[in-house]
This record gives sequence, C-alpha cells and structure tokens, in this order.
Amino acid sequence: MKKIFLILLAAVLLPLVLSAQQAIFTKEGVCSPQINEDNSVTFRIYAPKAVKVEVTGDCFANEQGGWGKAGLTEGEGGVWTLTTGPLDSELYSYAFIVDGQQMLDPSNVFLMRDVRSLMNIFIVPGEKGDLYNVCKTSHGTVSKVWYDSPSLGMQRRMTVYTPAGYEDSGNKRYPVLYLLHGMGGDEEAWVTLGRAAQVLDNLIAQGKAEPMIVVMPNGNAGLPSAPGEGPEGLYQPMTRPMKTMEGSYEAAFMDIVDYVDSHYRTIRKKSGRAIAGLSMGGFHSFHISKQYENMFDYVGLFSAAVRNPENGVGGIYEDFDSKIARQFANGLRLYYIAIGNTDFLYEENTKLRSYLDEHDYPYVYVETDGGHIWRNWRIYLTDFASRIFK
Amino acid sequence: MKKIFLILLAAVLLPLVLSAQQAIFTKEGVCSPQINEDNSVTFRIYAPKAVKVEVTGDCFANEQGGWGKAGLTEGEGGVWTLTTGPLDSELYSYAFIVDGQQMLDPSNVFLMRDVRSLMNIFIVPGEKGDLYNVCKTSHGTVSKVWYDSPSLGMQRRMTVYTPAGYEDSGNKRYPVLYLLHGMGGDEEAWVTLGRAAQVLDNLIAQGKAEPMIVVMPNGNAGLPSAPGEGPEGLYQPMTRPMKTMEGSYEAAFMDIVDYVDSHYRTIRKKSGRAIAGLSMGGFHSFHISKQYENMFDYVGLFSAAVRNPENGVGGIYEDFDSKIARQFANGLRLYYIAIGNTDFLYEENTKLRSYLDEHDYPYVYVETDGGHIWRNWRIYLTDFASRIFK
Repeated sequence: MKKIFLILLAAVLLPLVLSAQQAIFTKEGVCSPQINEDNSVTFRIYAPKAVKVEVTGDCFANEQGGWGKAGLTEGEGGVWTLTTGPLDSELYSYAFIVDGQQMLDPSNVFLMRDVRSLMNIFIVPGEKGDLYNVCKTSHGTVSKVWYDSPSLGMQRRMTVYTPAGYEDSGNKRYPVLYLLHGMGGDEEAWVTLGRAAQVLDNLIAQGKAEPMIVVMPNGNAGLPSAPGEGPEGLYQPMTRPMKTMEGSYEAAFMDIVDYVDSHYRTIRKKSGRAIAGLSMGGFHSFHISKQYENMFDYVGLFSAAVRNPENGVGGIYEDFDSKIARQFANGLRLYYIAIGNTDFLYEENTKLRSYLDEHDYPYVYVETDGGHIWRNWRIYLTDFASRIFK
Repeated sequence: MKKIFLILLAAVLLPLVLSAQQAIFTKEGVCSPQINEDNSVTFRIYAPKAVKVEVTGDCFANEQGGWGKAGLTEGEGGVWTLTTGPLDSELYSYAFIVDGQQMLDPSNVFLMRDVRSLMNIFIVPGEKGDLYNVCKTSHGTVSKVWYDSPSLGMQRRMTVYTPAGYEDSGNKRYPVLYLLHGMGGDEEAWVTLGRAAQVLDNLIAQGKAEPMIVVMPNGNAGLPSAPGEGPEGLYQPMTRPMKTMEGSYEAAFMDIVDYVDSHYRTIRKKSGRAIAGLSMGGFHSFHISKQYENMFDYVGLFSAAVRNPENGVGGIYEDFDSKIARQFANGLRLYYIAIGNTDFLYEENTKLRSYLDEHDYPYVYVETDGGHIWRNWRIYLTDFASRIFK
C-alpha cells in the first residue's frame, strides 16, 4: 500500500475542521468559567451584538438557593467579563442572561438538569469541591439497569452504583443504600446533581464510609424512567402522569429490593439495608421504612416531606402510630433527620421530631444553614453515608 | 402524630414552586420542538426582546452535515415560531440564534455533546427514528466501568452495554463488539450521538442482531476518561493531551480485551470478537485488527481514516503489508468498509479498496449519501451489527 504521508497534525486537525461545522457553542479563546488562584471565578462570554449581559447563579444566591445576578462588562473583541470575589469550596450552578434572554455558557459543556431546568456547573476546589470531584482513586461502576416490577406491571429503570473492587471481590457481600430523589426528579438526579458516585468513591477511598452498593430508583410510579430514557420518548419533564405520593411506589418497593437481592451480592438482612431520600424521597423513605417494619436498620430523611396522607395504595399510610411503634420496637441502628434552617418543610420536620420525642423514639438530628437545595442534600448524603453499616 | 391535612395537590405544587427558583430555562406554555402529524416540526422560543430569531440545524443541512438556518416569525406574547416541511425519519440536532447569539432551546432539555459543542436534539418517528428511540421492549444495561490498563499505567473509563437478559442467563456466553469513537470523541460518544444502546436493544428485540456485549472504550491514550469524568476535572474538550494516532492506544488495546474477557461472560475466541470504529476509530480498528492478526473475525471501518503513519508506539504501524497479509491468510468472516460519497476521507478509502482488490482480500463495501456525520455512523452501526456473530 502506498503510504499516505500526512503529518499527524493534519490527522488531528481535519476532524476538528469538520466538527467545526457543528462547533456552534465554542468561541475559540474564550475560557469560561475560569477558577482563579484565590478561588474567585471569572465568567466570560463572546456577545459582540449584546447591549446587556448578566450572569445568574447560586454563587449569588440567598440561603434559600434563589439565584441572584450580576452584570458583566464588555471588553475587547466583544467578550464580556465578570470576576467574582473568592468563593467557598462548592459545586455551583449558573447561566447567562444576554439582553434579557437566559442562555447557557457557550464555553462550558458541563451541565446539570434539575427537573426541567438546565444549568451550567463549576466546582471550586477545597474540602467540598474535592469530595464532589472525580479524584485520583479507584472508582465504582455506575449502571443504568432495567428491572421488572410485577406490582406496577412494567419494566423500570434505575441507577446502581457498585463500589470499586466489587467485580473482583469473589463472594464478598455488600450492604445496600436505597437512595431516593425528590418531586420531579428521577433515577438520574442523585448521580448528577447529588454527585453520589463521586461522594461514595471519595468517602470509601478515605475510609470514611464502608464499601456499599447504592440503588437509585425512579420514584414516579406512573412512568418507567427519566424523561427521554423510556418508551415515552423525548418530552418535557413534569408533563407526564405523576404517581408519586399516593402509595403506589411504596407498595411496589419490594420489587426493587427483590431484584437487587437476586442480582447483586448483597447482605440480605436488615443490618445490610439503609434507605434515605430528599424531600419527596424522604417522604418515601419515611413511609417505606415503617411499612416494611423490619427491613431497614438505617433511615435517612433529608429535608423530608413528612406529612401523612389519609389514603394510600395498599393502605400504606394507614395505622401510622402502630406501624412506627413497631418499627422502633423492632429496633433500628439509625433514624436520621436533616434539614436546613430556612427549608419550607422545616415546620413539618419539627412536628415529626416532637412526635418522636413524645414517644422516646431515638433519632439523630442535623440542622444546616440554607433551604431546600442540592447543596444541603450533598452534605446530608456525605454525613449519612459516613454513619451507616458500621 | 397530628396528621397534617395538606391536599396532595399542594404536595405536588410546593416543590415545583421551589424548583421554579431555578427553572430558568422553561417558559411555561412554550412547546418546542413540536413534531406534527405530518412529520413537520414546529420550533418555538419565548424571546420578547429579540429583533431577529433563527434556528440552525441538520434538518436544514447539506450532505456534508453543514448546518443551514431559517428565520422564525414573532407571534403573540413574544413567542417566535417556525414550522418546517415534513422531515424524513431521523434524529436531528439544532440550536437557536437570537440576535446573532447561538443558544440552546430553553424548552428542550434533550442535548448531545459532539466533541466541544452542545446541541438540542429531536427524533422524527418512522423507520430510523423508531430504531433510535427507546421502544417498548427489553433493554440492556449500560455501565460506566473503570478498568486497569497496565500498559498505559492508568485506570481508564469505558462504557459497556450488556444485552437484555444477560444478568439472568446463567452461564451463557456472549460475543463482544468493540466499538470505537472518532477524534475528539470519548467513551460517551457511541451511547449518546450514536444511540448504540437503543440501536442494539431494538435490533436484538427484532431478531435482526444477535445478543452481544458492546464495549466502548476511550481512544485517547493520553487521558483516562471523557472530559469531566476523570481526575482532570471539568475542562473544555480538546484542551488536554491527545495521544490518539501514534500507536499507544493500539499497543495497549489487549488490556481492554483482557479486562472484558475476565469480567464478562464472553466467547473468548476470534469468532466471538468484532471491532469497528468511525473516523479515527476506523483507523484504530484497521491497525488493531491486523496487529492482533487472529483476534477478530469481524472488522468494521466506518468513514475510516485509513492512513498508515511511519512510526508508531510498539511498531504498530510497521510491516503493514505482511501484517494485513497474515490477517487475511488467517481468514476472517467480515471485513466491512462503509463511507459517505461526500466524505473528506473518501479518497483514502478508495485507495484502501484498490489495495485490497489488488491482493484479492475480500471485503464488503457500503457507500451512502452524505459526509462525515453521525447520521451515517448510526446507519453503519445498524448494518454492521446485523451482519456479525451469525
């Protein structure tokens, strides 16, 4: 074969030239966001025709997580710039507003979807940032698994994290944390917004958490999967049937446990099972853990909706007092309640704590600053995961 | 416990109100894109302050995949609209241009990243669209797996697809397709832009392809993983070291095969292995399949860069004629070459075919319309996957 003498540079550049056909979101030379030495952050956007450019995000946020905003200044060549003050170590979300129009940062391909919103993200290094980053350590496997749910009559999708070394540990069995999302979330939420795989990889590598399997199901019993991942096709989140707080999911939950126990090397007893969730997922954890009264040794309620509806599929919400009495009579190793001091569910959680106090049901209570936001839920996961299976 | 009588509606709405704090990309009531009965598509965007709004995308594209554009018209309440003519069944990509500024569709959370570009997507139903959609059938498992690569001295990330039923099929062994991405791509490319999991799920369910494991590694030996998925943190794609066409990856490829054969129930012989790739991944498949001359019974070169550099790590590019002679003397079941008639690599592939013809090396050749674009690579995967392991 006649060798074709192309310098490798050309081999590198040709596809780039080509991909440039579609490279619509990158203005060469614009770096945004740029994390500076002092942990200040510089936002940049090429917007030569713009009259006004702002950035909105949770680094300008109030305690509730409501986004403030700040204006950028136009510089040379139509590039607008803003540098913040030094920021605490954290994972932050933001977007630009160009002449009143919200848009993502053309220079940043890293996004998260929160229910029906897309936002750019960046991580400021330090204690929290390093925990949420992929670090130089061994990593677990994250799988998208379809399981059969006879109770709901459908195949359903979930995310399963198996810790580093699981595949090579022979017959070793692992405990399981069932980790549940909030209203409007899905099986993607904890591994994207919650950084659950990074948090577990890092805690386990540091010896702060036991190696565990983490199962992240979909809490809307009306649908099989996250938007776009099921036969419903590509639709806008929250525009399809929701069966979320009427008992179906709780009544069918053992389908998930059965699948996990029959397909993974799990510790198939109470001491090997934890259940925790945020907001609606706290509601689910609250009711599931007392319904299956001797299944979970560890229960985590993160900013939980702890209300108790009148009616529920399979009588799930009935006989509250006797069920929770049996749950605590059976004994459990950790009943964990965490909430932010400005969370809109704070009062519900205060009432739950009074109820538990009245009955001398032991629990651990953690209160943080801030409201009903992922920043807190990542903190609660980190704390809860460090306390269980020990 | 005093029951808190909140109608469930409130339980549903509260979190929405809250998430609305961050719901920056959704204007209620705006549906975009809307696929109409006749397969025309209506684009809409709320942009009350805009003077000019256009949409750019591959539904306006030329054969090379270059994006054309079209203007939207402002209607009531600041919502701009455009309806296309009926479109062929396909997965399409697009973005808006508001007063000259490229931006994603605020009403569409479905995106793909192509190297360093983000674009919205939609699927027009029909033969191809249905193949790229998640259908009402059983689904395989898609896992993000970290494996050890002794040859490269690092842990590396890959995507592994195991077909529906794999977990429940006892000791049954499966053939493996090693599916390689192009320059600037990574282990995410084939399962996002390539819709590989949907294509395999659907072909297998229809009996058109054999159940197989599909292994999608990262072809840049200079990095462990896709941008943002490794210890390098969140960086702009293509701004980190590239070791892609100098032999390192090919020389280390058996690390991947060894991991897969030792961690999955594979058919551990030539008849159970296929290797295929697009563009640079075709280059890799071309050289790997002749270097390991008796390992792969099926070789697929999709729009392949089939050049043969002078020097390569581990002598990978040396002795071309004798290596390919041994590869064909050993016999293989399918040597498959596919390219679009306007692809910029068309001539390289013509030269390869002449070379194979000269030496009476048998191969299958498929030529399609169009250029160096994912639309073609999805077609080639569909065709190739239907021909192997039979």
